[in-house]
Amino acid sequence: MTDSVKLIKVRESIQADNDQQAQDLRKELKARKTLLINLMSSPGAGKTSLLLQTTGRLKDEYRMAVIEADIDSTVDAQRLADSGVEAIQLQTDGFCHLDVPMVQQGLDSLDTHVLDIIFIENVGNLVCPAEFDTGAALDVMILSVPEGDDKPLKYPLMFSKCDALIVNKTDFLGTPLTDFDLELLEKRVRKLNREIRIFPLSSRTGEGIKAWTDWLATMAAEHNT
Amino acid sequence: MTDSVKLIKVRESIQADNDQQAQDLRKELKARKTLLINLMSSPGAGKTSLLLQTTGRLKDEYRMAVIEADIDSTVDAQRLADSGVEAIQLQTDGFCHLDVPMVQQGLDSLDTHVLDIIFIENVGNLVCPAEFDTGAALDVMILSVPEGDDKPLKYPLMFSKCDALIVNKTDFLGTPLTDFDLELLEKRVRKLNREIRIFPLSSRTGEGIKAWTDWLATMAAEHNT
Repeated sequence: MTDSVKLIKVRESIQADNDQQAQDLRKELKARKTLLINLMSSPGAGKTSLLLQTTGRLKDEYRMAVIEADIDSTVDAQRLADSGVEAIQLQTDGFCHLDVPMVQQGLDSLDTHVLDIIFIENVGNLVCPAEFDTGAALDVMILSVPEGDDKPLKYPLMFSKCDALIVNKTDFLGTPLTDFDLELLEKRVRKLNREIRIFPLSSRTGEGIKAWTDWLATMAAEHNT
Repeated sequence: MTDSVKLIKVRESIQADNDQQAQDLRKELKARKTLLINLMSSPGAGKTSLLLQTTGRLKDEYRMAVIEADIDSTVDAQRLADSGVEAIQLQTDGFCHLDVPMVQQGLDSLDTHVLDIIFIENVGNLVCPAEFDTGAALDVMILSVPEGDDKPLKYPLMFSKCDALIVNKTDFLGTPLTDFDLELLEKRVRKLNREIRIFPLSSRTGEGIKAWTDWLATMAAEHNT
């Protein structure tokens, strides 16, 4: 554990075979019994808050680290480091997604052999990150209630490729501030992805978080044995 | 006015001189007295709702149209067409931003000579659209309260290049659902862009919209004479 943030300015890879590299990285991390999870969402959907809640609840059972990606700044990595989680900040310098060589630069700064779970907090963007395999074993996305229930219609690739969907900020449901329809959302998502796991929760109140962390624990047990 | 939606599937331009084309388009639209406005935000920040409010309030004074860009679907253009606004839907087929040739494909479907104001609703993304000049005379972004007041730290280019920032969903302020600090946000934005106009408003309640539409009217008067 560390309370300081390591900052890496990544450069875009010129290698075209990102998919092959992703497969190789997945195999390597499987052999090391390290579960790599790629977390994606729009800006402000709550990736960092969810990671704070998640690592806070699992810290006694798992050794974890977070690779944060942002165009600029180290605020997210600093929030995590302040909570006692090892956090690496990748600055993507204008690139709108992470690819395998960028993720590898983050992993190279971590002692992956002793880590059970590594989270990637991808760049806040529902478009480009969906198109690039990071080498993660699991792709997880967050949609927050204030964004609206029409997002599967507009960003279908993201919803199609993820293993789990977190519907965050459920404390907004039932207020006059939003007409978000959770059932309609689930129907739209299932049309794109029948197998996806859906976890409605609120990182702010903690409601629903346990179902998500229980699933994560099952995934880690399956992957790391 | 039309109540049907024209759908165009755009292809990415291979021309490298997007900036030159943007300057040419700006000059051409200035000569035609048509104000082109490029509206950008994260997914779900409220671009379409704001356009519905804006065109609804200005429809007696200005002839307007909207060019909608989405990865997929025609839902946004349909909402506008249903309200009586001429709307062209560009499907960007995975591209995460608009460039000038894509915008030109939308303009080619409109009778620009009779239009006073054309809005571009760019792809929902705070990263890539900031990097591509569309040829618009004005760049406007929306940040919605639920996204958080830290976004200028993380997406500085978008805040740096815009002429106006709309802070949408102000009806969330002062509720226990958010700790968004409008003063702090403004301070962070001004560090990046001293001249930017900031309009806090709620498209849902209508609060604050008038200041925005008054400014638009002033901009149209300046541009189109």
